[in-house]
Amino acid sequence: MTTRDDLALANRLADAAGAAIRPFFRARYDMEIKADKSPVTEADRAAEAAIRAILEKERPDDGIIGEEYGSVRTDAERVWILDPIDGTRSFIAGRPIFGTLIALTQAGWPTIGIIDQPIAQERWAGMSGQPTTFNGKPVRTRACKALEGAGIATTSPHLFAEGDVLHYMALVGAVSGGSPRQGPVYGGDCYNYGLLASGFLDIVIESGLQSYDFAALVPVVEGAGGLMCDWNGEPLTADSEGHVLALGDPARLEDVLEAIHGAGDGHDHGHHHDH
Amino acid sequence: MTTRDDLALANRLADAAGAAIRPFFRARYDMEIKADKSPVTEADRAAEAAIRAILEKERPDDGIIGEEYGSVRTDAERVWILDPIDGTRSFIAGRPIFGTLIALTQAGWPTIGIIDQPIAQERWAGMSGQPTTFNGKPVRTRACKALEGAGIATTSPHLFAEGDVLHYMALVGAVSGGSPRQGPVYGGDCYNYGLLASGFLDIVIESGLQSYDFAALVPVVEGAGGLMCDWNGEPLTADSEGHVLALGDPARLEDVLEAIHGAGDGHDHGHHHDH
Repeated sequence: MTTRDDLALANRLADAAGAAIRPFFRARYDMEIKADKSPVTEADRAAEAAIRAILEKERPDDGIIGEEYGSVRTDAERVWILDPIDGTRSFIAGRPIFGTLIALTQAGWPTIGIIDQPIAQERWAGMSGQPTTFNGKPVRTRACKALEGAGIATTSPHLFAEGDVLHYMALVGAVSGGSPRQGPVYGGDCYNYGLLASGFLDIVIESGLQSYDFAALVPVVEGAGGLMCDWNGEPLTADSEGHVLALGDPARLEDVLEAIHGAGDGHDHGHHHDH
Repeated sequence: MTTRDDLALANRLADAAGAAIRPFFRARYDMEIKADKSPVTEADRAAEAAIRAILEKERPDDGIIGEEYGSVRTDAERVWILDPIDGTRSFIAGRPIFGTLIALTQAGWPTIGIIDQPIAQERWAGMSGQPTTFNGKPVRTRACKALEGAGIATTSPHLFAEGDVLHYMALVGAVSGGSPRQGPVYGGDCYNYGLLASGFLDIVIESGLQSYDFAALVPVVEGAGGLMCDWNGEPLTADSEGHVLALGDPARLEDVLEAIHGAGDGHDHGHHHDH
């Protein structure tokens, strides 16, 4: 059972991560500095250490999966999934649109998710059965009556594998009607999912995401009325191969899947990769 | 002669634009709302009207070139070039990384440039012969010893014309060493040039920019120690066909031009399009 106490704890974890990250944002450094001493790596580690110190004290039986310090007790009923800095390239470039991702999963399903932007001090918080909030106030996705003209975002077209990029571009074509100025907004990482939850974007599509990239996004998007699924419209799992789709208006799912796969393709994209 | 008074006035113009824009940011609206009634269009118009009201009162002899309300007195010695919202797609998506661009040109050359982000309240101000400032404090670009590993940004790969995208991708290849995770950071519009001035990016490359898109960027980048030029290393003019290149470290110019054009191509990219 996930409770308001868990959500309060998740908020404290995000506070601690933000305090650890802020001193490193826009720290000047030389290109010669090795990756493991760069401000983003140091911020990443400091934030994850701060979160883990609180969890080990307050929830010693819960599992933790983190990018920097590995996994413990992953067979626990409750597992916290941490990504202190999602959007490392954005962080390095000094853009205040990266995010800290904190998820709590129960029996493998994310029941709490936080997307926190510690520089702009913006926080989306989602919890199963509760409305998603932005800085404490409920938010809703917006209606989207047609694909053409929808607001679509993804971090970079280069992050799609070769077979995926064609499907991605087919969706972009349907949304933009062929006009590049009506095309996707790029960059943004997890921040895009927050903006979708708040009703400023309609579609976010990515591939190659790990479970620590998307676990926190699910409660945020779904608690705001949106839908998260894989490129076949199925719930996201470790088997989704990182094919992530977020829709502000679930009524557009069939249109999006048709645009991605083409009519008659049968939406079995994920299976093409099975061995 | 451009003076500190002109810079003070430019700052007042940016203040007025920001005040006009802020109420429209993240205003909820329906996709059915026509483009000319959308929050971004309304913000654009309100900001340009606010700027022009001040200029008409204080500098009735200066020319003005604006996206929304057209051009007046463009043959004047001093002409103000305005782009109230550069990064309209970013604005629409609710990202606080669009910018207001204000430039003063004398005899056709930009001598003052402002990049203002009114939500985050971040302002880069450049003036010929003066160090560029960020929120009032001097900033400098950073050294960049080699192309590989440099921080490169552009708004969207889809904004390059067909012939340009190959040159662009050649540069990306030289910078990233073939790894997409080391590739460009996308999105950002004018904000990228501010971050380059502050030493967090090394290269910004774009094509298809209009003079109102880049006039304000030149004093900001050059006053911070960087270089702005076209894709042949020549000064930007109306004939540059919007091929804009910004380098934090001018010492990398030859490397960048070679990467863009390939050895032996003679850097005559712009001329390929001459008719």
